[in-house]
Amino acid sequence: MILCDIGNSRMHVYDGISVRHLSHEEGIALFRESELFFICVNDSVRERIGREAPGWIDISQRHRLKTDYEGLGIDREAACLGIEDGVVVDAGSAITVDVMEKGRHLGGWIWPGLSAWLSAYRDVSEKLAVELVSDVELDRLPLKTEDAVSFAILASVKTMIQRFAREKRIVVTGGDAPVVAHILPGAEIDETIVFKGMKKMIKDSVC
Amino acid sequence: MILCDIGNSRMHVYDGISVRHLSHEEGIALFRESELFFICVNDSVRERIGREAPGWIDISQRHRLKTDYEGLGIDREAACLGIEDGVVVDAGSAITVDVMEKGRHLGGWIWPGLSAWLSAYRDVSEKLAVELVSDVELDRLPLKTEDAVSFAILASVKTMIQRFAREKRIVVTGGDAPVVAHILPGAEIDETIVFKGMKKMIKDSVC
Repeated sequence: MILCDIGNSRMHVYDGISVRHLSHEEGIALFRESELFFICVNDSVRERIGREAPGWIDISQRHRLKTDYEGLGIDREAACLGIEDGVVVDAGSAITVDVMEKGRHLGGWIWPGLSAWLSAYRDVSEKLAVELVSDVELDRLPLKTEDAVSFAILASVKTMIQRFAREKRIVVTGGDAPVVAHILPGAEIDETIVFKGMKKMIKDSVC
Repeated sequence: MILCDIGNSRMHVYDGISVRHLSHEEGIALFRESELFFICVNDSVRERIGREAPGWIDISQRHRLKTDYEGLGIDREAACLGIEDGVVVDAGSAITVDVMEKGRHLGGWIWPGLSAWLSAYRDVSEKLAVELVSDVELDRLPLKTEDAVSFAILASVKTMIQRFAREKRIVVTGGDAPVVAHILPGAEIDETIVFKGMKKMIKDSVC
């Protein structure tokens, strides 16, 4: 069984062993004939799949997470279903944080992704157009601009996640998972968490 | 005595009674002939003043704050000099936070301003192009996208400032001061804090 999480710019394909990150073109070309279950956040890509890979099975509607959140993206839902208790952090083009407790989604919040967040500084002033210092010290006040920017981003992420995670398990996924997990002692990186949720969606709709 | 804080896009003029926020053109036209002391973060505006208002007195070099921070902007320095002990938050095109203790600057950090920060979401996805909900609840997890964005920004600002302020006084200045002060119980808004620092710079260089 092949599982596929389709985002706005890339698709992530999991064959049970490893995850491949592909463009929509590449993914469709490679897996057109496969038995593939997918979720998709982008309507125009979904239409394209209907034309070019009509055998693929859209499971987006199969399961709804227990939540009071209005309009939670299906990728966030799947990631939440992949964890029973704990905090899921998806650090990609946006950084989403969702809190799960006993199989129920309690809510979550959204920062810009690290790249978009840094771009916002560039838009304010040329002097703030700096790269991320991923190992900036987070327990003492910064003493230069480069650190002041990285500290603002990373200390915010760390402080807020720890505040709401309390003793809960923290699972980090997405392209910037290594940077975010690095600042959260004890956090696990799991790039298959969305697929674990997708498996649950398929299983629950069969039983 | 007229004091003037010149930023990248606006200048802020204080006559001892009220603060006026003007474009560079307006400010120069109105106060060209006045005895005016200024600080300026923008080199091309400084050159322009040299040509168009040659009587104005640049005090940027008169005083250096006690700090180990490299490259602190003169406007941040002046704001810090305006306070002996406490945290200064300047919420403008960027949000700067600086911590002062017994007349010494301990360091600080920088977020994008609220407007630039929100733009970063817009760059990530159309679905995240939302307005700030300035009264979003900050002690419970958000349950819709609009709140999830505002919460991420405002709860980060609140949590981080309170973490480093501890029992210290918090003074907020800048165009978004009302929004930021609203989430920080006990914080004072003072749009003259930079000018208080400038007065100190002038006084100290005379004595």
